[in-house]
Amino acid sequence: MTPTRPAALLASLSLALAAFLPGHARADEGMWMPSQLPQIAAALRQAGYAGDPAALADLTAAPLNAVVRAGGGTGAFVSPDGLVLTNHHVAYGVIQYNSTPQNDLIDAGYVAADRAAELPANPDFRVLVTVGFDRVTDRVLAAARGRTGRAYHDAVDAAGKRIVAECEREPGVRCSVASMYYGTDFYRIRQLELRDVRLVYAPPRSIGNYGDEIDNFMWPRHTGDFTLLRAYVGPDGKPAAHSPQNVPYRPPSHLRVARQGPREGDFAMLAGYPGVTFRHRTAAEFAEQVEWTLPARGDVFDALIAAIEQAGRQDAQARTRYASQLQSLKNSRKRAAGELEGLRRSDAVRRRAEDERAMLEATRGGDARDIAALQRVLAAGSAVRERELLLGLLSSQTQLLRSALLLERLRIEAARPDAQRESGYQQRDLALIEGVLRQVQRRYDPAVEQALLRVLLARYQQLPEAQRLPEFDAAFGRTPAELDPALAALYRGTALGDEAARLAALEAARQARALPADPLLALAARLMPALLRLEDARKAREGEQLRLRPAYMRALVAWRQRQGGAVYPDANGTLRVSYGRLEPLHARDAVTFAPVTTVAGIVEKHTGQVPFDAPQPLLDAIARGDFGDTADPALGTQTVDFLTNLDTTGGNSGSPVLDARGELVGLNFDSNWEAVSASWWFDPRYKRAIHVDMRYMRWLMEKVYPAPHVLREMGL
Amino acid sequence: MTPTRPAALLASLSLALAAFLPGHARADEGMWMPSQLPQIAAALRQAGYAGDPAALADLTAAPLNAVVRAGGGTGAFVSPDGLVLTNHHVAYGVIQYNSTPQNDLIDAGYVAADRAAELPANPDFRVLVTVGFDRVTDRVLAAARGRTGRAYHDAVDAAGKRIVAECEREPGVRCSVASMYYGTDFYRIRQLELRDVRLVYAPPRSIGNYGDEIDNFMWPRHTGDFTLLRAYVGPDGKPAAHSPQNVPYRPPSHLRVARQGPREGDFAMLAGYPGVTFRHRTAAEFAEQVEWTLPARGDVFDALIAAIEQAGRQDAQARTRYASQLQSLKNSRKRAAGELEGLRRSDAVRRRAEDERAMLEATRGGDARDIAALQRVLAAGSAVRERELLLGLLSSQTQLLRSALLLERLRIEAARPDAQRESGYQQRDLALIEGVLRQVQRRYDPAVEQALLRVLLARYQQLPEAQRLPEFDAAFGRTPAELDPALAALYRGTALGDEAARLAALEAARQARALPADPLLALAARLMPALLRLEDARKAREGEQLRLRPAYMRALVAWRQRQGGAVYPDANGTLRVSYGRLEPLHARDAVTFAPVTTVAGIVEKHTGQVPFDAPQPLLDAIARGDFGDTADPALGTQTVDFLTNLDTTGGNSGSPVLDARGELVGLNFDSNWEAVSASWWFDPRYKRAIHVDMRYMRWLMEKVYPAPHVLREMGL
Repeated sequence: MTPTRPAALLASLSLALAAFLPGHARADEGMWMPSQLPQIAAALRQAGYAGDPAALADLTAAPLNAVVRAGGGTGAFVSPDGLVLTNHHVAYGVIQYNSTPQNDLIDAGYVAADRAAELPANPDFRVLVTVGFDRVTDRVLAAARGRTGRAYHDAVDAAGKRIVAECEREPGVRCSVASMYYGTDFYRIRQLELRDVRLVYAPPRSIGNYGDEIDNFMWPRHTGDFTLLRAYVGPDGKPAAHSPQNVPYRPPSHLRVARQGPREGDFAMLAGYPGVTFRHRTAAEFAEQVEWTLPARGDVFDALIAAIEQAGRQDAQARTRYASQLQSLKNSRKRAAGELEGLRRSDAVRRRAEDERAMLEATRGGDARDIAALQRVLAAGSAVRERELLLGLLSSQTQLLRSALLLERLRIEAARPDAQRESGYQQRDLALIEGVLRQVQRRYDPAVEQALLRVLLARYQQLPEAQRLPEFDAAFGRTPAELDPALAALYRGTALGDEAARLAALEAARQARALPADPLLALAARLMPALLRLEDARKAREGEQLRLRPAYMRALVAWRQRQGGAVYPDANGTLRVSYGRLEPLHARDAVTFAPVTTVAGIVEKHTGQVPFDAPQPLLDAIARGDFGDTADPALGTQTVDFLTNLDTTGGNSGSPVLDARGELVGLNFDSNWEAVSASWWFDPRYKRAIHVDMRYMRWLMEKVYPAPHVLREMGL
Repeated sequence: MTPTRPAALLASLSLALAAFLPGHARADEGMWMPSQLPQIAAALRQAGYAGDPAALADLTAAPLNAVVRAGGGTGAFVSPDGLVLTNHHVAYGVIQYNSTPQNDLIDAGYVAADRAAELPANPDFRVLVTVGFDRVTDRVLAAARGRTGRAYHDAVDAAGKRIVAECEREPGVRCSVASMYYGTDFYRIRQLELRDVRLVYAPPRSIGNYGDEIDNFMWPRHTGDFTLLRAYVGPDGKPAAHSPQNVPYRPPSHLRVARQGPREGDFAMLAGYPGVTFRHRTAAEFAEQVEWTLPARGDVFDALIAAIEQAGRQDAQARTRYASQLQSLKNSRKRAAGELEGLRRSDAVRRRAEDERAMLEATRGGDARDIAALQRVLAAGSAVRERELLLGLLSSQTQLLRSALLLERLRIEAARPDAQRESGYQQRDLALIEGVLRQVQRRYDPAVEQALLRVLLARYQQLPEAQRLPEFDAAFGRTPAELDPALAALYRGTALGDEAARLAALEAARQARALPADPLLALAARLMPALLRLEDARKAREGEQLRLRPAYMRALVAWRQRQGGAVYPDANGTLRVSYGRLEPLHARDAVTFAPVTTVAGIVEKHTGQVPFDAPQPLLDAIARGDFGDTADPALGTQTVDFLTNLDTTGGNSGSPVLDARGELVGLNFDSNWEAVSASWWFDPRYKRAIHVDMRYMRWLMEKVYPAPHVLREMGL
């Protein structure tokens, strides 16, 4: 997520740090801002941390500045020469970029024999090093204060854009503004943008992704989900595009890989970039998520999945083109089911409601009034939730309609000065838009797109009168009988299926010129006024939430204070620290999963078939039992993965896991199925995170696919 | 299984008891004959048994005479008035017999308010009380000694039949002859045949079969798989058919239900009637089972399953008629897969081979020569294994062809004096044959039967020349192209699809008269000479095995003696005792299942849909938490099922589980998936048995579906 966009602003709020009661934080739950750590120092030490919590407060200083954004996840520097450790699945695109049918590095893995053999990453892969984290609340809210609704939203949005634009004047730096505690506080984040990243070491797929979708979200796990990259900079030490002249980046600090491994009960700590959580949402939002959103999403996802599968049955090309979208829909569907199951199991709706009721009873004055106003704004949004869900999917699940809407909107925005344009349509976004328009070719089939639109628009046609839009009714009719011919005519007539046509339209749109005559572009122009009306209403609601949620957060912090607890901000893609320990999972009655797995499980799961096709060198090495000093002394064998109760969510992939001395013992790569609902509700009985044991990585690099020079570089 | 039949004779062999080294039995493995228990008394006491092992030696005296055969499983008397405790699934037919669409006792469960309300079982349901167990080895082998092959077989068979016929002259008694240690020793078993059995207490299906097929073979389990019956006798105390004048049977002893429950590590002991095991088979038989039999069975089962499912897709009536056969095939398929997986996981083939090699090196003289001869007999059987498998399925998987073969064979046998007839075709078997012929109506569809025959005969047609039978080739042709019209003609012309026609043919066959003219009956007459030839060869091989396996058993016992162990006979449907303890299951790497489940798991599994539709009164009672003295003091909640390492197999359903003091703490009802292979190889890491905790039964009968009068009768 991009923290400068309104949705991201809304996903977070900030509190005065004075609100924390040192030493009274609830252990195990919490994605703490580094700056909070000195204030919960007593709890951290009690949990077993042997270092100085104060040293963790500054995320731009060692050791936390060794933790970086890598691709879509997290990574960490593990050598003075810019070696970055992250997940195999985070670096997947890098490996894929270097693979050919003749030389499939995904299947075979890769060990660069020396620096010259390190392979360039795909050009859009980035390593981002945080170099600045500054509170800019007053600047962001200066113009917003005294305003309401849309005006409040736009003032915050404009201030954020100004701050980012000013910040990015420095070359090689990427900036963003993050809101903490849902609009309470704002921080400007400056990140060094390392663009020359290279592949150093990747295990074969059958290690790095052993178990694949079957084991996804599962514990016990036996996956070696790690890869080593290296960041390069220009000879001047500044970020630069890939070039043979570039030299390894010298990070300000790097993590030290531990020689010992962790055992059940041991302290563990993790730093990374969790994406988004909803733990501090209102009781009404919890109830809506469980009672409406998740079931409704499940229902419409099921229908979209069925439409794609139906089409794929007769048409192999359509099957191929929609394989990725289908996979993603199924994944979303599975997650929705898991989230629903987990929230019900934790009785989260009732517990949040009781908690909020007690909190509200203790809240008076202006904050109480603001919270009441917030509840009304949320209710107004709920009144149009079916329509919002369907219209959102209308562009996210289509290729040509999405392209047409994107082009028409760009045409409108391009007429304005860049700074006043909607986020996503500024100069800095044009490359991304072009990418979207280009990839259509590999993902589009007219019959499937029409089938998906039929699913969505037939549901739209059943909305109550108050949610109908005249522009949509005119375009698609009011009955399924009118819908089919309307869609057929649109897709028969459009030229947007052709890449050249889309790129020609992009050229016109970016110059704010009239778009070519095309039925789908004409449709986008007819629908746009309706979409802009809805966007205006949405932004007005979002502005109100941004204005009012801080009152809710103040009340919550005060309430937690009385209970002796501290409050961390909901996740928003910024660097956070979590601490806890290696802990078994009592997943169900009489079922206990130990927190450490061993190579015996690789052999047990091995079938010889993907995804349980452990490579022969690995099986041989296991059979030899030659584990040396990477074996666990108590278990007497080689460990593979381990489990902690650390607080993580999407975005934490690749987060380094540290022991009590701050040494690197693991690499986060997944969480368990029972924890899918933790984005809303942290249930200590079930929330676990899954990590690669660094001893497994070391053993693979020592004995199975040796890379002694890389181990030496890491000091091993 | 009926122990008097040749197959059963072959399934067991017997050893001189002097061969056992007291106190050196391997703990946990073993289905001991009660008479062996005094000789392993030290091991029993060391395992924790507090009673006197000598008191367990006589299975016709207390406490073991409280353990009975009930229906297809085991049961136990639990009151002085003939109350029999067994599994819900063992008594399922009894409950079903009393159910109507209007009053479905399977769904609702049943609590007889008083004795008058106890409902009669289906008339063929039996409770068998063992009253005699006498060694008859010399009588059985007298005429066989000095003979070989078919003659040896027939002499043993004839002697067994004579003993049974003589024994059954006493009214109300059912007799059989069991062979121990594969023909080494023979025992005559006399059992009181209690024919008036009534239903006293059954929980609803959603308790008694909670989880059904999904949880079958699974641990953790949450099933209340128990039912209480009562045995009645005539006013004279003798077995009698159902009559209102009958009175409760007063058993010679009954088991006392414990007030305490067991905990992890506690001693446990079980008595019951395990059906068949193969633990003492030769290394070659182990190898054949893993390398050929299980894969081949899996393969042909898959083809039969596909044929039924294909037919069912177009025809709802065929689907209904073959539902039970399909279910049974799938179950066999699943078991074959589980057995294969388990034997491979335990490396049983290699370990058995190494064990046998060492044993043979230590074996000399006549026994060594007999064992070599046994290996040759087994190899001769292996040479025709494909044909034996296919021809066996030809009658077990068909309805009309099986009927025709049954009728033709009966016609032949009926011409002989009853005592000389083949087992299964004697006077005492006629009711069973009639039952088989009558049930065809509900289970037959001509298209499906032809599809199944096509699967089997097409495979027959691919057999090598040496295994071909001229009669079969003439009847079905030598290619699939000839097969289809042959089958079509047979099924177009036959009248055996009509029940009256089958019963008319039965009337003719039992009088040894010519059968009616019918294409299928004519086919049976043409095939019969071939089948009788094969039977003759099979019986000759079986006779040789019966003659030679005792040498193998002697060598094995001597070998175990040197290792300090004792040998129990392979299971053969006779009463056995196993002892061990409550033990967790480490099923896979990092996965541990605790040995006791609680009511929390019922709620976790509850979906409201069959088979996880816990009844509301149960859910309410769990929510109330009103467990009283049936709760486990350490767990602080109500337990449901528990897990032991007791040695069990099919037939042990309903076996009582006793604690160290000999009190009833559980009721065996299943084993775990990992233990399916235990019929061949006992792997202490994985072999577990699953039991209902008697505290759960008591709690249900106290608080959920109360039956205080029944509890009082049990002394609770």
